[in-house]
Order: sequence, then C-alpha cells, then structure tokens
Amino acid sequence: MTDPHVLDLSTDVVSLTERLCNIESVSHNERAIADAVEAALRPLGHLTVTRHGNTVVARTELGRDERVVIAGHLDTVPVNSNLPVRREDGILHGLGTCDMKAGDAVILKLAADLTDPNRDLTFILYDCEEIESHHNGLFKLAMSDPELMRADFAILMEPSDAIVEAGCQGSLQCDVRAAGERAHSARSWKGVNAIHKAGEILNRLATYDARTPVIDGLEYHEGLNAVGISGGVATNVLPDECVVSVNYRFAPDRTEAEAEVFVRDFFDGFEVTITDNSPGAHPGLSRPAAKEFIEAVGGEVKPKFGWTDVARFTVLDVPAVNFGPGDPMFAHKQDEHVAIEHIERCERQLRTWLGLDKPDHREGS
Amino acid sequence: MTDPHVLDLSTDVVSLTERLCNIESVSHNERAIADAVEAALRPLGHLTVTRHGNTVVARTELGRDERVVIAGHLDTVPVNSNLPVRREDGILHGLGTCDMKAGDAVILKLAADLTDPNRDLTFILYDCEEIESHHNGLFKLAMSDPELMRADFAILMEPSDAIVEAGCQGSLQCDVRAAGERAHSARSWKGVNAIHKAGEILNRLATYDARTPVIDGLEYHEGLNAVGISGGVATNVLPDECVVSVNYRFAPDRTEAEAEVFVRDFFDGFEVTITDNSPGAHPGLSRPAAKEFIEAVGGEVKPKFGWTDVARFTVLDVPAVNFGPGDPMFAHKQDEHVAIEHIERCERQLRTWLGLDKPDHREGS
Repeated sequence: MTDPHVLDLSTDVVSLTERLCNIESVSHNERAIADAVEAALRPLGHLTVTRHGNTVVARTELGRDERVVIAGHLDTVPVNSNLPVRREDGILHGLGTCDMKAGDAVILKLAADLTDPNRDLTFILYDCEEIESHHNGLFKLAMSDPELMRADFAILMEPSDAIVEAGCQGSLQCDVRAAGERAHSARSWKGVNAIHKAGEILNRLATYDARTPVIDGLEYHEGLNAVGISGGVATNVLPDECVVSVNYRFAPDRTEAEAEVFVRDFFDGFEVTITDNSPGAHPGLSRPAAKEFIEAVGGEVKPKFGWTDVARFTVLDVPAVNFGPGDPMFAHKQDEHVAIEHIERCERQLRTWLGLDKPDHREGS
Repeated sequence: MTDPHVLDLSTDVVSLTERLCNIESVSHNERAIADAVEAALRPLGHLTVTRHGNTVVARTELGRDERVVIAGHLDTVPVNSNLPVRREDGILHGLGTCDMKAGDAVILKLAADLTDPNRDLTFILYDCEEIESHHNGLFKLAMSDPELMRADFAILMEPSDAIVEAGCQGSLQCDVRAAGERAHSARSWKGVNAIHKAGEILNRLATYDARTPVIDGLEYHEGLNAVGISGGVATNVLPDECVVSVNYRFAPDRTEAEAEVFVRDFFDGFEVTITDNSPGAHPGLSRPAAKEFIEAVGGEVKPKFGWTDVARFTVLDVPAVNFGPGDPMFAHKQDEHVAIEHIERCERQLRTWLGLDKPDHREGS
C-alpha cells in the first residue's frame, strides 16, 4: 500500500504506530489522521462508527453486561525535527511515538481484531488534547454526546510506562496579587514596593507542607507552587503590583471547591483570582471492572500525579485509569521515543483481558 | 513673526517658553528646535556658537575670573495629547512646559541679554536627555569636547521648584538571580522552585535599612528596591530561574565601585549582574561660585535624590546644581505644567546674580 494516509489494520501494531506517527497531526491539524482512522474503521461490520469534528467513535453493540471505553488523542505537540519516525534497537523514535500514537495503534488493532469481545467496547480517538481545554475533543464529546462516553470503566492509553496509573490529581491555577503604591525609585520611601510585599507570598509557599493522602491504597502527593511571577513598571519607578501565578495540584479526595477554599485561606490577606480549576479523578479501584483489569495486567498500580483526561470520565461517574506504552518523561521532548516491547505488551494484555487470547498465549493474532 | 520655527529672543520669557514648547521635539526629533536655537543665537556678536549634532553651545569669551555653565535639554518625552500648550490663570500647561522648556527659555533670554556679564558664560542646549544615556547630548559633548563643559560652576535648569537642588544620588541597576531545577509541576518535589528561592531576595530587600548620610549639610536618603521581577516557564513547569531587577540609589559619598561592593555583599549567595551604574554628584557647596549663587537665589538648598546630568559635570570636577522652574512631580505627566511665576523668578534671580540687574530690581528687561 503506497498511500501513506491509508491505514492497514491487518499490519502489526508497531508498523501501525509508525504509520500513524508519519501522518503529521499537530493540534488543530488532525483532519487527515481522523479521515484515515474513520476510513479504516467504517468497513468493519462489528462496529458502529460516528464522527464528531475530528473525533472518531467506534462501538460494539453486543449487549454485554459491561462496557469499557478505550481512548486516545490523535494530536501531538509541534514538530521538532523529529519526523519521520525511525526504528532502532527495539525503540521507535520520533514525534508521537510516546504521546500517544503507540497507544492509538493498540486501540486500532483491538478495534479491528475484537469482533466478539467479552465486554462491549467503545473506542474513542479524539483531537486537540495538547492545547487549551476548550478545544479538547473529549471535552466536546462530553458536552455534545455524553452517552457515548458512558461505561463501567475507561482506559486512557496515555503513556504510563505500560503499567496502570489510577485516578489523577486536580489542578487549580490562580493569581495572587500584592499591591503597593508607585513612587519614583529615587524617593522610594514615598511609596510602597509591591514586589517586596510579594516576599510574604513566596515565604508562605516555601513553608508549604504537602498533603499525601492515601486513597484506594494509593498515596497521592499534592503540590503548591509559584509557576510565574511578574512585576515592575520601569527601573526608575517603585512597582505598585506584583502577581504570583500559583499552581495547586490537589489529591482526588478534594473537590474543586475545597481546593479553592484552601488557596484562598493559604493566601489570606492577598487578592486571589482563580484562573483555572480542573477536578481530580478518584482512582475508583474498588469497582469490579477496575479490579479485574488491574489483575489482568499484572496488579501493579501507581497514583497519577498529573492531570489527565481521565477526569473527564470521573465527572460522568465512570472509573478511569491511564494505561499505555511509553515513558511519560519523554512526552513533549525532542527525543521522544517508545519501547517496542511496551507497545506489544499493552496490546497483548488488553487482548487477553477482553477475551481474544488465552492468558498464557504470548503472541497476538 | 509667523514662522513658528523662528525664535524672537526679544519677547518675554513666558512667550518664549510657549514658542519652544510648540516646536515638538520628542527625543531623536530635536533637529528643528536645535536649528531654531542655533539660528537665534548665531547673530549675537557677544557669543561664540558651535553645533554638535543637535546640541548647541554658546559661550562668552570675556576673560572673566570665573566661568559658569548654564544647561538644559531640548527634548521631551512623547506627546500625550498635551500640545500645543495653553496659558491659564498664571499657569502654562502642556508637554515640555515643566521638563524643561521653561528652563530653556530662561537660558535663551540670558544668552541674548547678558552681553556684559560679571562671569564668563557657557550656554548648552542639548538633545536626547529623556532616553538611554548613550544618546545623551551632554554625555556626547563630555566625550568629544570636554573643554566646552569646563567651568567653576554649572547650573542645570531641570525643574526643581525654582530652588537649588544640590548634587545627586548615584544609581546602580542589577539583576539578582535565584536558580532552581525544572520539574513537572505535578511532581514538584523532583525539582527546585527558583521563584520560591527568590523569596529570600525579597526578604532581604524588605528589611533593608536606608543610609541617610549628611554631606555639605544636606541629608541624602538612599534606596534599595526591586523594580522588576520575572520567572516562570509554563503553568505545568516548576521554574528554574527567577530574576529580580534591583535599583540602588546611593548617596554621593559612595563611589560606583563602593555601590557595587555593597549590592554584591547584600545579595551574598545569589548571582548578581550589574547592568548599569551611574555615579552620584557631590553637592560641592563649599566652592566659592556655588556659595555665592546660593546666597543670590535665597539660600535655600535641598539634596537631589534622583540622578540628573549634574553628575556629568562632577566627573569633570565642576560643582553643579539643579535650579529651574517647575515642580518635578509633574515632569513626564500628561498634565505637565509650570507656574509662570517660577519662570520669571528664575530668570530674574540669574540676571541679578550675573550682574545685569540690581538685586532689588524686581522686573526683567
């Protein structure tokens, strides 16, 4: 097959990863890859395929007792001299290999091969994950067609070193403002230096003692950090404003409202403006579907510290985990890469769990 | 006379101020006003006029025992809906009225009228005072023709409320850098937050105790201030750098080198980069020319806290003071203005001191 935009789902998962990576799909430029994905899935008789912008949803409708969502985003961060991808010594190098076209390739292989799975399946391949939340295809789908996201369990195939990362921490962003009074810097005693006053904000941050609550057996680790600071008018002017941009990562036992109360209390005496607030996701490991999945993939589970789209399932009361090939430390890096063994292992474990292969059968179809 | 660019030096000092203001001369656009000044001074037989870029120098060569420089800059800050000027209830409103075409008008009146002064006089009207120092016409003149600035005493007619402001404080600018280590803000314990570390820089600034040395009977007042702060990479990244921009105003009993030693010691443990360092000016009030001048204008003297071009005379060992019409608090303001009484008083006092009128004669020519 010579058209690079036609996907052959009968090929192996690693070749399919390469093919997906080489369809450049930086955020807002996912039309070609979404077209290719849709074209590959539409002919499959066991799937009902719908298209929502550049998001593609494919579902089985077999009347099984449980339904599982398996999802991945199709976009990448900008190209950084790291396309096309290359395979070398068991490693696939290049943009999208880790975050997250290896995961997408696993999803497409499962969608093609699992014609008679033991659970009903919903595959979601969506756009605009790497940019502002309001563009996010999964966010839009939750607004327009939430019934397509309903399930007993959801797996987001973001890179997680091929082990299960459960739940995620919430993320609140706020501006903390110290106010002063301008004066000429040569007569500074006539004003109030707002940057000096902001020292108190930084002092409080430096003494912050992080909560590490244990939830479903997983220890989360909160964080409260200045991620930006700005102030100053000119070198001869005493500044009348200094704004510290603060990021609060909160464990999933706290709601967004509780997180807001915490930061307002923490910075008492300063003006606090909340600029963004995304809820965490409870790991939900006590749910039957989650328990069985974790056993099937080896039992190892870690808490997820960063915010991910799993939280979009949590608000729909769907327990969700991250489970995908690739070391997340290499996501967004110029030297992004993925171990081929990760891709093959994730595919194998999911096939087994979903009833295609026997547990001890090590090779795929 | 209808050509707005022709200056009639026989008119009164207030009308001449208006005329000068209405020749727009924002920094780097002083050619027209310098041409007008040069054209007005060249015909005067008692003056030797030279032109240096857009700086005009006019000197008497009468062999007097003393020589006095009287100087003013021709440029203004940018126009801010405040031209042309208007006269109302004893006040002249508009761009340049205060900073410092009222002073320039006094200089031009003195240059025209003082055909036989009791001291030799050097009038300097220069460009580019309101912008970066290396463009400054007086700075350039000190480099190219320092002999034209030599004198026993210098008066800079910057706005000073029509009283004498002696000397000036030095100004050192530096960047103080806190360093850290990047990490994802969701796993902040893996990095070092540079903004949090900068809290110590702000703490030291907040506890700074200003020196107030008395020099020649004048109490100076130092200042050490953050005038800018910046740090931050992205809301999901722990910042690895925070830079505090610090301004140190130092009394004229400290040299530039001593000022640098002070800030390096004060911020010990942090990387300090000196970005600018301008020496102060000793008031020099014990010099005979300075003493007589101060007596002639009423005896009141204040220390100058801000840096001014008087320091350019100090490095040539010429004692220098600021003395000019206008409240400096209105310089660079949209509502810039000057009291007509200030302009007339400054002109009168200088005429008297330079021997044109008797001390008690209250009216000018």
